[in-house]
Amino acid sequence: MIVFYSEEHRLQSGRSELNDGQLVPCYEKPARADIVRNRLDAIGFGSVRAPEPHGLTPLERVHDVGYLAFLQNAWGEWVQEHGDWDALPLNWVAPGMHRRVVPRSIDGRLGYYSFDAGTPITAGTWRAATSAADSALSGADRIRAGDRSAFALCRPPGHHAGKAFYGGYCFLNNAAIAAQSLRDGGAARVAVLDVDYHHGNGTQEILWERGDALFVSLHADPVDEFPYFSGHADETGAGAGEGANLNLPLPWGTDWAAYAETLDVAARRIRAFAPDVLVVSLGADTYGGDPISRFRLLSEDFLRMGAAIAGIGLPTLFVMEGGYAVDDLGVNVANVLTGFEDS
Amino acid sequence: MIVFYSEEHRLQSGRSELNDGQLVPCYEKPARADIVRNRLDAIGFGSVRAPEPHGLTPLERVHDVGYLAFLQNAWGEWVQEHGDWDALPLNWVAPGMHRRVVPRSIDGRLGYYSFDAGTPITAGTWRAATSAADSALSGADRIRAGDRSAFALCRPPGHHAGKAFYGGYCFLNNAAIAAQSLRDGGAARVAVLDVDYHHGNGTQEILWERGDALFVSLHADPVDEFPYFSGHADETGAGAGEGANLNLPLPWGTDWAAYAETLDVAARRIRAFAPDVLVVSLGADTYGGDPISRFRLLSEDFLRMGAAIAGIGLPTLFVMEGGYAVDDLGVNVANVLTGFEDS
Ligand SMILES: [Zn+2]
Ligand SMILES: [Zn+2]
Repeated sequence: MIVFYSEEHRLQSGRSELNDGQLVPCYEKPARADIVRNRLDAIGFGSVRAPEPHGLTPLERVHDVGYLAFLQNAWGEWVQEHGDWDALPLNWVAPGMHRRVVPRSIDGRLGYYSFDAGTPITAGTWRAATSAADSALSGADRIRAGDRSAFALCRPPGHHAGKAFYGGYCFLNNAAIAAQSLRDGGAARVAVLDVDYHHGNGTQEILWERGDALFVSLHADPVDEFPYFSGHADETGAGAGEGANLNLPLPWGTDWAAYAETLDVAARRIRAFAPDVLVVSLGADTYGGDPISRFRLLSEDFLRMGAAIAGIGLPTLFVMEGGYAVDDLGVNVANVLTGFEDS
Repeated sequence: MIVFYSEEHRLQSGRSELNDGQLVPCYEKPARADIVRNRLDAIGFGSVRAPEPHGLTPLERVHDVGYLAFLQNAWGEWVQEHGDWDALPLNWVAPGMHRRVVPRSIDGRLGYYSFDAGTPITAGTWRAATSAADSALSGADRIRAGDRSAFALCRPPGHHAGKAFYGGYCFLNNAAIAAQSLRDGGAARVAVLDVDYHHGNGTQEILWERGDALFVSLHADPVDEFPYFSGHADETGAGAGEGANLNLPLPWGTDWAAYAETLDVAARRIRAFAPDVLVVSLGADTYGGDPISRFRLLSEDFLRMGAAIAGIGLPTLFVMEGGYAVDDLGVNVANVLTGFEDS
């Protein structure tokens, strides 16, 4: 399996995020991608390549043009207003408020285009985010070219980013961008399977009214867990996409036995949809040792997860999402990929 | 003019708020009420009294019962989960998300019921906020009893708080609670005039569909200024309240000359509505020296503001809102009140 990885991920290195009422060092940090890359090298897994630049056009197929311009310019505007420190928003759209007018001030636009206070925009955010999207698009190119699988080692991750908003460490929705690229390249139907611990609210929002793209997500029940306001079982899509969105929320403490049963439900739904290709939003924050998550998967369970995904029997693009137990992240992610390949 | 003031305001003393991407000491702090109280004492202004407790019933006339229960219990739940540190939310409702399900975890509920990361919930928030509401209600009682005016020296402030959300340093909407109490006490029509620098988005939301309550607000244009997503001129109310909401946004740099003209527009609109009583949301953050605001009023302009409000010719309850230039806040607020009384 070919792995796409850009050194430019390092350019996204935030200083702090708001968590538990305090500004703490960012959980989403460059070491995450480094350790996955190092593990893949150590076990001699596939060939690691730099992604091809794909430009703005495939991003505009998924994201709002005004949002992309904002992301590209936000840091410069922030520095002019506040100085050289991570940009964090201040407030968001409450009941009785509206999004009819895009604010002029940078603080207003940060709130307009975001949904949390944990996702700093830095000097390198735009370059890092576009390099991650290029990795996902390069992986999609391999699938289009006939490869059985590819792995886009994206950083920053993407599944919380919507058409016109960032948050949850995500700016561009790499998985949705790749899925759209596969559709545009000739696949009649695509499925996105999200196994990150958190609900992929951005992917759901992007694909909500799409009948040609199935979104299936296993995640911690939003009644307990971030992002809280998305990911319930009764969210099934709308319009042409009605029925093409399947949320499978699971309780805190879920171990592999319960997870595997639910993954089987997901696999059957994907097979029934009969897509041409599968995009997997691969977060490893379901791991028992994850510092911000509460599932109980063990490292060896990720081998089984990879085998279960292989069992779906589709050309498969893996796109890296979350996972914050950095020391074990390399082994856990590599286990999914080798579990897939060895099946 | 009788002044209502509770020492319990001191119980709301947050450590930090998110501002300019960093956690900074709270601008909304106990010294604000102290300096106003001291100034009123120094000039021998009226008699200062502790408010009468009014219980939950008048709060429930304005706020959601679930929201009130949340506010009352949030600190205890937060401490159990995170320890003894200011409670700040983490994320909010983005496009594609929804408020159909109230989260179970305290972090989820903090986001559900708030709209910014600048309003810490502390051990004393509930007691301080209810004492401020009691001051507003006690002031309303004086108006009902026939006084020409009263001043509720509320802290924390209230005009950003809606039916079921807090933010902008506000938890309970003291002005709306007082206006409702005046209605319930026999006033057929009430008007709320908001002269705080920021749009009173909470008051607007509470009164949005009310034809018996006019809301008029002068404030910094939300295209530039907090709360960004509320306060535009085209927000005029809905249903029975259509036309009973008047927003008068003003540009950064507004001085008294421009402000006075707009205040005259507000006064004429209020007189045309012919209410029985007037509630004034009195923020002094229109002052040129305010650290987080960008209007240019001088201390003597606040005398003129008080006179202009007196010129409306209605029984008037002043309710304290914002103002963060602490050293000058006492003089500026006292000037509004003496400007009113001397007219
Ligand atoms: Zn995650
Ligand atoms: Zn204000």
